[in-house]
Amino acid sequence: MATRSTIMDTNSFRPEMAAALDPETRKLTEEREVLGPAYRLFYRNPVHLVKGRGSHLWDADGVEYLDVYNNVASVGHCHPRVVEAITRQASLLNTHTRYLHENILNYAQDILSTMPGPIDRIMFQCTGSEANDLAVRVAQAYTGGEGVIVTHEAYHGNSALTSKLSPALGTAQTLGLKMRMVPTPDTYRLEIDGKPAESCSAETFGAWMAAEVRKAVADMERHGVKFAAFLADSIFSSDGVYPDPVGYLQPVIDTVHELGGVWIADEVQPGFTRTGDAFWGFERQGIVPDLVTSGKPMANGLPTSLMAARHEVLEPFAGSIPYFNTFGGNPVCMAAAQATLDVMRDEDTMGNAKRVGALFKTAVASLQAAHPCIGDVRGAGLYIGCEIVKPGTTDPDQQAALDILETLRDNHVLTSVCGRYGNILKLRPPLVFSEDDVDWFMDAFTKTLTTLKL
Amino acid sequence: MATRSTIMDTNSFRPEMAAALDPETRKLTEEREVLGPAYRLFYRNPVHLVKGRGSHLWDADGVEYLDVYNNVASVGHCHPRVVEAITRQASLLNTHTRYLHENILNYAQDILSTMPGPIDRIMFQCTGSEANDLAVRVAQAYTGGEGVIVTHEAYHGNSALTSKLSPALGTAQTLGLKMRMVPTPDTYRLEIDGKPAESCSAETFGAWMAAEVRKAVADMERHGVKFAAFLADSIFSSDGVYPDPVGYLQPVIDTVHELGGVWIADEVQPGFTRTGDAFWGFERQGIVPDLVTSGKPMANGLPTSLMAARHEVLEPFAGSIPYFNTFGGNPVCMAAAQATLDVMRDEDTMGNAKRVGALFKTAVASLQAAHPCIGDVRGAGLYIGCEIVKPGTTDPDQQAALDILETLRDNHVLTSVCGRYGNILKLRPPLVFSEDDVDWFMDAFTKTLTTLKL
Repeated sequence: MATRSTIMDTNSFRPEMAAALDPETRKLTEEREVLGPAYRLFYRNPVHLVKGRGSHLWDADGVEYLDVYNNVASVGHCHPRVVEAITRQASLLNTHTRYLHENILNYAQDILSTMPGPIDRIMFQCTGSEANDLAVRVAQAYTGGEGVIVTHEAYHGNSALTSKLSPALGTAQTLGLKMRMVPTPDTYRLEIDGKPAESCSAETFGAWMAAEVRKAVADMERHGVKFAAFLADSIFSSDGVYPDPVGYLQPVIDTVHELGGVWIADEVQPGFTRTGDAFWGFERQGIVPDLVTSGKPMANGLPTSLMAARHEVLEPFAGSIPYFNTFGGNPVCMAAAQATLDVMRDEDTMGNAKRVGALFKTAVASLQAAHPCIGDVRGAGLYIGCEIVKPGTTDPDQQAALDILETLRDNHVLTSVCGRYGNILKLRPPLVFSEDDVDWFMDAFTKTLTTLKL
Repeated sequence: MATRSTIMDTNSFRPEMAAALDPETRKLTEEREVLGPAYRLFYRNPVHLVKGRGSHLWDADGVEYLDVYNNVASVGHCHPRVVEAITRQASLLNTHTRYLHENILNYAQDILSTMPGPIDRIMFQCTGSEANDLAVRVAQAYTGGEGVIVTHEAYHGNSALTSKLSPALGTAQTLGLKMRMVPTPDTYRLEIDGKPAESCSAETFGAWMAAEVRKAVADMERHGVKFAAFLADSIFSSDGVYPDPVGYLQPVIDTVHELGGVWIADEVQPGFTRTGDAFWGFERQGIVPDLVTSGKPMANGLPTSLMAARHEVLEPFAGSIPYFNTFGGNPVCMAAAQATLDVMRDEDTMGNAKRVGALFKTAVASLQAAHPCIGDVRGAGLYIGCEIVKPGTTDPDQQAALDILETLRDNHVLTSVCGRYGNILKLRPPLVFSEDDVDWFMDAFTKTLTTLKL
């Protein structure tokens, strides 16, 4: 097995690569010294983007790229309806939630109408990290516990609290003493009762994961920690994309509830129609969470996030502790979120994610026979994970995955990697990805694999 | 003395006040149930704003208000240059910091050029809370300590970490076991060596505060906690506005450094030319901090914040722990921040804050003789605190302050209160506040005090 990587350390430019760059790119990378060492650029040869439209991006030399990575521009880069909504509201008024404004109320009602009935309260923040940070505190106030469970490669944010719940940040980031990890629900590699997980029913696979939660809670209790919440995104994005078998989270949420915890559905990745099967990732899995968070895809790029809750779960926190987020829920961000939601409906991004996502997955999987480095292709809608392995094994091949990434970049296709070993191609384009875009990707991917003799 | 209030519980609408409202306002307040109980509206009769321009706001009935409260719309509500910059960039490209983009680099250089030389690194987030959350972690990594000192009524953010450093949130919010509070530098009420603090020199007042820091660190050490940082805004905004005597923070920062800590200058309130004397609040005080944070006024309303640092202070954190903020530093937020900074220079908001702020403070203070409820008027530039007290005493009169607030609102002037007892009028308008605006305020304030017989 390869050494463990972190989501932050794979696919990144390092200063020692600067000598190979053209002078203009080199100058810009050098100027980034002012941002300090925590910032990471994608690619050995970083991309200098200046324009975006739909699922396409352009660099400073006018070269056009296919975007197979960015979920923030959910309805496509620079969607004119979102730009128009931002401009109109920014010209009229931008202020905060201590004055009355319709935008926040209309959007709150509209977005809650996409969620199951018991989830009837919503609060707004600016980032997914802020939403998860708040959700954990709400869960802790409701349960009276402090212990939080996440998966082994989870990423839930960059705040002090959420960093300690994000093992994907790597070993330099200490994890909380009261948190526990359960294994990645790795359908590709796990065996359950001696059978490949891939062939398990939802019930069997879910029972395995529920048992892992039970073990984690037992360990918490042995250390005097009361269980508060299971925090997970239902597509297990940074773990490596594990959406199936549909229904496997039902035994897990039942166990969480039985043990006195709440379920926080982190919908930064699977929410907002991405899976093609449902508006929300948890909905696709057929479960009703206690708390829901989201951010990235919500307002097509303006910093906007949400935390929705059952009112009885929210009450102990919100009834006693004031919470004010200066920019959260402001009229401009709400206008952008509303326009994004309107476009998702009017352009049927869910239908597009389902239809194009299915074509996309089938197309990528069709290369497995000719290219044995492709170990597994899985996904839901426009979120596809493609395992790059040592041929004939399930051993991750991070180096090959990185070579593929870099060559795809040279072939004007932008994507990245995820998973414990950084070997899983993360194919997660804007939701307006088209059949033509699939063709473009397949041409570039085939050419890349052929060039690399993989 | 009045019972202690919290910044969140003063000046707020409560559901039981709904019966007195007009039907439309009442309907909107009722619809806010969906946001849960943590949200607070200003005023017994909340304001429903629909339009803003410069330092003026309009409600849904077309009534015009003078804004003497909002510092987010720093260069004035809906400044056309900021709106234009947002529109232009949102139409072109909005993405993240893993690709190269000039906006972040140009703005980073430009804003750092306003800071002292040793502060040579900058990172971008979306909210002041995120900036402070990160700054505390950076300080902890650099010092190897965990203990943080704040003032007694400080507010530094809404994240799990920063809430525990924000006593202003009230007693339901537990504070960190490793934090300590030093008293509010209350020049109006404190006596130092038997003399009124008001008449103390900067050296004497600073020596008092430095001694308080020393006591706090000694208490930390007794509990086995190593000191990491003093986190303060140099105008002590939520404590009640204490900008003078200029220079009193020098002995304090010297002591912080002597004791092995770093100084985090929270510039959410005094930064970006507000004090009229300098671009930054710490600069006005003549000190050079180790870390600088800001948010609210930075991009005229788009969620944007910064954490600047000395490179050697940033290194231990940023050199080992990856930090990625999806929306932080994105091209649209950076365009808005750049336009806001350009306007600050081109329209000389610093000069305006100094000139109009001085007129404003003198005008408010001129009412003291006729209205003995005004106990003290202090401030710097366009940040003025006006103490409402029981006549002839320094006892805070929160009820009178709230009555003034509500009557000012009825007279179409928007402001709020701050301080431990919620009795200090917080006069903090957009930086484009004009002489005519001062006249408007004075007419409304005089009428208000006369009506209330105060």
